[in-house]
Amino acid sequence: MTGPSKRDVNGAVTCNVALLGFGTVGSSVARILCERSNTHLRLTHVLNRNVARKKVDWLPSSVRWTENIDDVLSSDADIVVELMGGLQPSEDWIRRVLAAGKSVVTANKQLIARCGPELIGLARQMNRQIHFGASVAGGVPVISGLHEGLAGDDLFKIRGILNGTCNYILSQIEANGMPFATALREAQKLGFAEADPTEDIEGLDARAKLAILARVGLHCNVRPESIMARSISAIDAIDFEYANQLGCTIRQISWAELKANAKGNRDELFAAVQPALVELSSPLARVEGSQNLVVATGTYGGETVFGGHGAGGHPTAVAVVSDILAIARSQQSAPSRQSTTTTMTTSDARPPAEKTPAVTADFTAKHYLRFLVKDRPGIIATLATILSECGINIDSVLQKPGCPKSHLPFLITLEECKASLVEHALKQINSLDFLVQPCLHLPIL
Amino acid sequence: MTGPSKRDVNGAVTCNVALLGFGTVGSSVARILCERSNTHLRLTHVLNRNVARKKVDWLPSSVRWTENIDDVLSSDADIVVELMGGLQPSEDWIRRVLAAGKSVVTANKQLIARCGPELIGLARQMNRQIHFGASVAGGVPVISGLHEGLAGDDLFKIRGILNGTCNYILSQIEANGMPFATALREAQKLGFAEADPTEDIEGLDARAKLAILARVGLHCNVRPESIMARSISAIDAIDFEYANQLGCTIRQISWAELKANAKGNRDELFAAVQPALVELSSPLARVEGSQNLVVATGTYGGETVFGGHGAGGHPTAVAVVSDILAIARSQQSAPSRQSTTTTMTTSDARPPAEKTPAVTADFTAKHYLRFLVKDRPGIIATLATILSECGINIDSVLQKPGCPKSHLPFLITLEECKASLVEHALKQINSLDFLVQPCLHLPIL
Repeated sequence: MTGPSKRDVNGAVTCNVALLGFGTVGSSVARILCERSNTHLRLTHVLNRNVARKKVDWLPSSVRWTENIDDVLSSDADIVVELMGGLQPSEDWIRRVLAAGKSVVTANKQLIARCGPELIGLARQMNRQIHFGASVAGGVPVISGLHEGLAGDDLFKIRGILNGTCNYILSQIEANGMPFATALREAQKLGFAEADPTEDIEGLDARAKLAILARVGLHCNVRPESIMARSISAIDAIDFEYANQLGCTIRQISWAELKANAKGNRDELFAAVQPALVELSSPLARVEGSQNLVVATGTYGGETVFGGHGAGGHPTAVAVVSDILAIARSQQSAPSRQSTTTTMTTSDARPPAEKTPAVTADFTAKHYLRFLVKDRPGIIATLATILSECGINIDSVLQKPGCPKSHLPFLITLEECKASLVEHALKQINSLDFLVQPCLHLPIL
Repeated sequence: MTGPSKRDVNGAVTCNVALLGFGTVGSSVARILCERSNTHLRLTHVLNRNVARKKVDWLPSSVRWTENIDDVLSSDADIVVELMGGLQPSEDWIRRVLAAGKSVVTANKQLIARCGPELIGLARQMNRQIHFGASVAGGVPVISGLHEGLAGDDLFKIRGILNGTCNYILSQIEANGMPFATALREAQKLGFAEADPTEDIEGLDARAKLAILARVGLHCNVRPESIMARSISAIDAIDFEYANQLGCTIRQISWAELKANAKGNRDELFAAVQPALVELSSPLARVEGSQNLVVATGTYGGETVFGGHGAGGHPTAVAVVSDILAIARSQQSAPSRQSTTTTMTTSDARPPAEKTPAVTADFTAKHYLRFLVKDRPGIIATLATILSECGINIDSVLQKPGCPKSHLPFLITLEECKASLVEHALKQINSLDFLVQPCLHLPIL
């Protein structure tokens, strides 16, 4: 059992920090801890696989390099920072760290999205803390912003651009008119996308983050798997041309919104991660490159925006070090005893009651349907008939001139209706023989 | 001496709250406390002048209405919320509240800008807290964002739009081409500007907020009076036309930046509140109406943006209630004893060392000089000669066609140079007899 019992020459409590994982973020955290004059924070351990390969000469010689978690568990580290990623062994190790009476800082979104409440419960049992500010939107302090800065509001909607890779790729398609595959390759070359980009492109990364934000900001217990995620891979340069004609652009939007039922109870959560059209005047439309942005909407305070670098070693490390400092601060504030503070990033002694709402992606919105067809007479009539039979009203039809008849792209926008209604119509439409590829369906938010 | 010794039926500590001031923000705070299910927060007192006139029927009958601060001081209130504004009696009363062992939440920017460190010191002596999240940018959680969310970074620059009144007036001049005086009258009619708008228009309101942000984010002890503030009243519709031609718009910009000297020490603070040209692509250019925005720049995390409603009863009340909850949370976390937490919004046991840097407004920038002249030959030559003699290079000359010869507006932009150099040249220029009014000088940021 360790605690803030060590004091430096000024009488301040010294806080020992151990790092699990010495990749891009881990080494940035180490660098900030060394460069800043945080005399009360002391890096004591660095754990990594093949640790000999990782050793650097700019860390104090007092830092112990190890491959063995038991070295950290049995050490006098007060705070253990998990930056290995992945579900295992991260989960087991965090449990063991908490059980050993140490606090935890982690940037592990998949783990927190899945096991956050349990790990918070375990930390509370042990009178320790677990912070995960770096798990969403990198350096943008949105977790603390929702949990503390906007604690006085009654938030009901969170929209965001939570995946810098997708935003970079979409920005590139928009700016340079390149096909999706080319933009993805460029992003991979520049290190903005992973060799296997599935997690990002398919929205799985963003939905884990959205699940965390829904818990912190909307007090909704949502499993990431219950949130619909759609790929951005079907977006083409032509879609930006059409979107622009509608005064919009296309972004991967993460959206979670509590909706009231007839009785006024907010018991249904609309949540999805998908490419969508957003008006050019919206702050979401202006997010460029790998930036992240979150817009939180509350009953009292209206819209509040948080934006900045959503990824990268240094920005993410800022979030990690801010969390370390928050834990150190709460230990400082109780200088005469073992820390008994249980303040946690998403939990305190009297958190607002957590809901477990029904989750749906069936948003009511205008819709964008982009077709690629082999032209022949009667196509619009056929589509209009099916849509009409489904009770859907067409808002506009747009066709860019000068395209080849064999691969003719055109656009139909729909008046506001439920997404499920459109999906139902598309089941019929996508079997029509004049379609060169399935219709691309995006909501207009 | 009061403390969190009261518990509700669930065993949670109940926190008693007294309100000083029941104007727009005060009544919004009361409303949020009543409407939200914060069963552990209990509004016990409302103090106001002529309190009978203020009484409302939607507050619990248990709330005590008073005009006498002694009623609050001798009560069992744990947290006293000061929303009266002004320096006195607010300062005296806050001192007495802290001395009585109660914590304080205040939205009083002028008071915190002037006496913040002293009041924080007093709170610490008493083992109590003072929070002032609502003193800057209303509902935008920028104080907690800088102090906690970005604590891990090393911030060196803060830019912001901190005065919604000025931003509303400038937006109106821009959108409708109206003269300044008309835009001001409109803003007054709609409640966006006070009957006496001096504090807003002249930048005094924004510089108090900037002084607070410089302290919280840059750890600089700056008196608001040491920050240059310039009026927006000389801005005319023509300036937006010219600014647009330069790819810019005009906003009242609050700017504080630590600059390094030759040895790399950041010991000089550039700080000013002034109307300035900002590029249309900048987030600062896109702030519309009465919105506020703050961009913080750090060594590690780059730029982080906080935006939202900077004024209004409800958004400001969100910041106040968030501060109340932060204090209540820290009391909850020490349930078995009198609260001894000393965590404060701008101070903790080991804050980064506070600097008292030299403050200057002598930014190096490009400059915008807009003249209004009685036309005659040789004007440009005269101006060019003076500028050249002062060592200043002209970048461009722009003149809108079709203006009357007797009131001819035209524009000179200057290459990057120190503002003081331009001011020196303008002393000579403004005495020239062809000028109808003094030259308008704005930096291009």
